[in-house]
Amino acid sequence: MHLFSSKFVKPPDHVNEITGSVTTPRGFRASGIAAGLKKSGKPDLGMLVSESPCTSATLYTPNAAAAAPIRVCREETAAGALQAVVVNSGSANACTGERGLEDARAMVKLAAAKIGIDPRFMAVASTGVIGQKLPMEAVEPGIKFAADSLSKSGGGDFADAIHTTDKLDKDGAVEVNLSQGTATIGACAKGAGMIAPALATLLVFVTTDAVIPAPLLRKMLTAAAGGSFNAVSVDGDMSTNDFILLMANAESGVAIEPGGGDAILFSEALAAVCKGLALKIVADGEGATKVIELNINGAAGAEEAVRVAGAISNSALVKTAFYGRDANWGRLIAAAGAALAGQPELLADIHYEEVCLARGGVACETAPDPERLKEIMGKPEISVTLDLRRGGSSHTMYFSDLTHDYVTLNAEYTT
Amino acid sequence: MHLFSSKFVKPPDHVNEITGSVTTPRGFRASGIAAGLKKSGKPDLGMLVSESPCTSATLYTPNAAAAAPIRVCREETAAGALQAVVVNSGSANACTGERGLEDARAMVKLAAAKIGIDPRFMAVASTGVIGQKLPMEAVEPGIKFAADSLSKSGGGDFADAIHTTDKLDKDGAVEVNLSQGTATIGACAKGAGMIAPALATLLVFVTTDAVIPAPLLRKMLTAAAGGSFNAVSVDGDMSTNDFILLMANAESGVAIEPGGGDAILFSEALAAVCKGLALKIVADGEGATKVIELNINGAAGAEEAVRVAGAISNSALVKTAFYGRDANWGRLIAAAGAALAGQPELLADIHYEEVCLARGGVACETAPDPERLKEIMGKPEISVTLDLRRGGSSHTMYFSDLTHDYVTLNAEYTT
Repeated sequence: MHLFSSKFVKPPDHVNEITGSVTTPRGFRASGIAAGLKKSGKPDLGMLVSESPCTSATLYTPNAAAAAPIRVCREETAAGALQAVVVNSGSANACTGERGLEDARAMVKLAAAKIGIDPRFMAVASTGVIGQKLPMEAVEPGIKFAADSLSKSGGGDFADAIHTTDKLDKDGAVEVNLSQGTATIGACAKGAGMIAPALATLLVFVTTDAVIPAPLLRKMLTAAAGGSFNAVSVDGDMSTNDFILLMANAESGVAIEPGGGDAILFSEALAAVCKGLALKIVADGEGATKVIELNINGAAGAEEAVRVAGAISNSALVKTAFYGRDANWGRLIAAAGAALAGQPELLADIHYEEVCLARGGVACETAPDPERLKEIMGKPEISVTLDLRRGGSSHTMYFSDLTHDYVTLNAEYTT
Repeated sequence: MHLFSSKFVKPPDHVNEITGSVTTPRGFRASGIAAGLKKSGKPDLGMLVSESPCTSATLYTPNAAAAAPIRVCREETAAGALQAVVVNSGSANACTGERGLEDARAMVKLAAAKIGIDPRFMAVASTGVIGQKLPMEAVEPGIKFAADSLSKSGGGDFADAIHTTDKLDKDGAVEVNLSQGTATIGACAKGAGMIAPALATLLVFVTTDAVIPAPLLRKMLTAAAGGSFNAVSVDGDMSTNDFILLMANAESGVAIEPGGGDAILFSEALAAVCKGLALKIVADGEGATKVIELNINGAAGAEEAVRVAGAISNSALVKTAFYGRDANWGRLIAAAGAALAGQPELLADIHYEEVCLARGGVACETAPDPERLKEIMGKPEISVTLDLRRGGSSHTMYFSDLTHDYVTLNAEYTT
C-alpha cells in the first residue's frame, strides 16, 4: 500500500500519497476473484472498469513471441480510448496460436457484454505459464463473476488477482495538486522476476480522474516508463506478456493541457508513481535480498550508458557478489569492459555509496574503511556509481541480487 | 585426462586420443608449483616451454578492461613466434594500472632469463581476483622455482596450477595421422564460470610438434575457437583475462602446408581438441549439473542465429528450468522472441532430443510421452533444437544450468 518505500524515490512536493488503489480516482470500479486457474485456489481473474469513457495510453512488449492478449489489444481494440480491462493470472495465453487469439477475443467480448460497452474499448491481459491453452470453461464463468463483483472498494482484490510469484503488494494512490484543482492517480503492478529482466511478465494498470487528451497521455506514459519500468527491464528485452495501461476518465474535471505547467506537474507525479512501483518490483525480485541503484556516468553516448548499465545489471557474477555482501568491484568493471569490447582501456571510477573503491580503473590508493563498507553491503538498498570517464552521458538502472531462493523458485515453478 | 567425454564431440577417424598433456608433443616441458598466491596453498604458478623456437597463434579478450598480462602479450611480445608462457592463478593482475603492466613485464623478463630466451618470445597470463596487485614477493621466487621444475612430465602440474574454481581436469593429448606421418597435439584449459559466459576467465594452451607456418596456425586456431570456446562464451563478450595460445615447434618434422589435405586433417583434429576442452569447461560450469546443446536452425542470417542462441543460453529462467528438470519450452521461446523484438510473430518448432514440444510456435497437438521426457530431462547432456522457420542459417551453442551451487560459489568466492 506504500508506493514510496524505497530510498531511491521521493514524491515531489505537489504529490501526496494517500491510502488507495486503482479504484481511488473517481469513477473506477474493480474486482478480483478466484476462477480456478491457479492450482492454489488464489484469486486469478480481475476486472477494472471506468464508469465513463476514458482516454488511454498503452505500452506493449515488442517480443516476437508476444502473447495472444497482447496481439488482440494491439490490433483489435481502440487506440487511445480504452475504458476497461479484464486480466487473468495462472496462464499466459502465449504460444497458443489461433486458438489463443480466439480465447483472448472471447474474454474481451464476454467482459464487454457483461458491463455493456463496445468490445473495442475492452483491453485484455494474461500472465502465467507460457504454451498452455486457457481453460475457458473456468475463465468464462470467472469473467461473469468478476463483472458481478465490481465495486468501488475492489482495487485491492484486482491487484491480488493479477499476481503470480509476487510477495509484496504493489498498489497505491496519490493526490496531485494542480492549478485547476486536485486529480487522483491510482496504480497497481504485477511482476517479480526482475532478476532476469525481460523474461518476467510485467503488468501495470494506472488510473486517473484527470482530463487528459490521449496524445499527451501517451507522451507522459512513455516518459514515465523510461525512468521506471524500462530502467529495471533492460533494452526492450521484454516478456511475451508485458503490458502497461493508463486510463484517464475525466471525472475530476481537472483538465491538463499539453505544454502547460500542469502537464509538467502531472508528468512528475506519474513518473514518481511508476518509479515507486518499479522499485517495488525489483525489491520483490524473485528471491531478492537487495535493490542496487546503478548510476552509469561519463558514457560516450546515451546508447553506451544504457548498454553498460544493462551488462552490469544482468551479470550473474555481479548479482551473486551483492548477495554475498562482497564489494567485488572487479566484477562490475569486467562486465562494463565486456560491454565496451574493442574500445580503449576503461579507466572507470567506482563508488559504493560515498566510498571510492576504484579510480582510473585501479583500486584506490587508500583502502576504504572496512567497517563502513561492511555496513553498506549489509543494507537492503545500495547505490553504486561508475564513472566511465568517456563522455557526458548517464543512465540509471535498478536491479536485485541473485540468490539461492531465486534458483529454488525458478527451478520449481513448473509447467 | 579424457578430452572426449561428452556425447557432443567425437574425434574424427584420423585422430587417436592418447594419455597425455601439453608436454606430450615432442620438445615441450612444463611445471606447476605453489608460489603462495592462493590462500589454499594449492599450485598457482606454472611454466610451459618449448625447447626449440615455435610458430604461434593467439586469441586475446577484446574486453576494454583487459588485464595487464593481456596488454603486455598483445603489444610487447613477438607475433607468431612465442616459445614459452608463464602463468599464475590466484590474482588476475587486472585493473592494476601502470603497476600491473610493470609486474607483468617483470614476470616475462624473469621467466625468459631463467630459461635463456629473448623476452619477446615469452607470453604471460594471469587469472584470479580482479583489482588486486600481484604479490611479486611471492611471484618472483615462484617463477624461479617453476623454471627449475620444468620437466617432460610436468604437463599435469601445469594444468593444475592454472585452475581456480575448476573441479574437472581439462587436459589431454591426441595423435593426428597425416600423409607425412604422425603429429601430436597436447592441450589444457582453465575455466569454470561458463554459467555466466563471458565473465569467467578462459585460459587455453595448445602445443603441437607439427611444422606449421604462423599464418596457417592462426587461421586454424580462429576456426577451432569458433566452434568451441566462442560457442560457449557468447558474442566476444569475454572476461578481462581470456587468452588462448597455440604453439607449434616443428619437432616431429611433419610439415603441414596451407591449402593441402593435411591442413584440413590437422584443422579437424585441432577443432575436436578445442571442442572437447570447451565442453569440459561447460560441464565444469560453476555448480552445473547439466550440459545443454542448443541448435538454432532456420534463422534469417548468421548474426540472428548467434543472437538467438546467446539470448537463450544466457537466460536465467531457461537455465533454472533445466536445473529443475522442467521441459519448460515457453521460457526458450520467450527468450528467442525477446532477441527478435519487433520481428513478425515467431512460429518456432522446438525439440528436446527427438521429442517435439512445439510446432509453429504452439504446443504440439499430441502431448509428448511424459516418461520419455522425464528420462531426457534427467540426463546430464541434453540436445535441444529450435527451428525459427525464418531462413537458412544455423548456430550451435553449449551451456550449463543455473543451480544453488552456482549461487553459493559466487556469493562466497570473495575479494
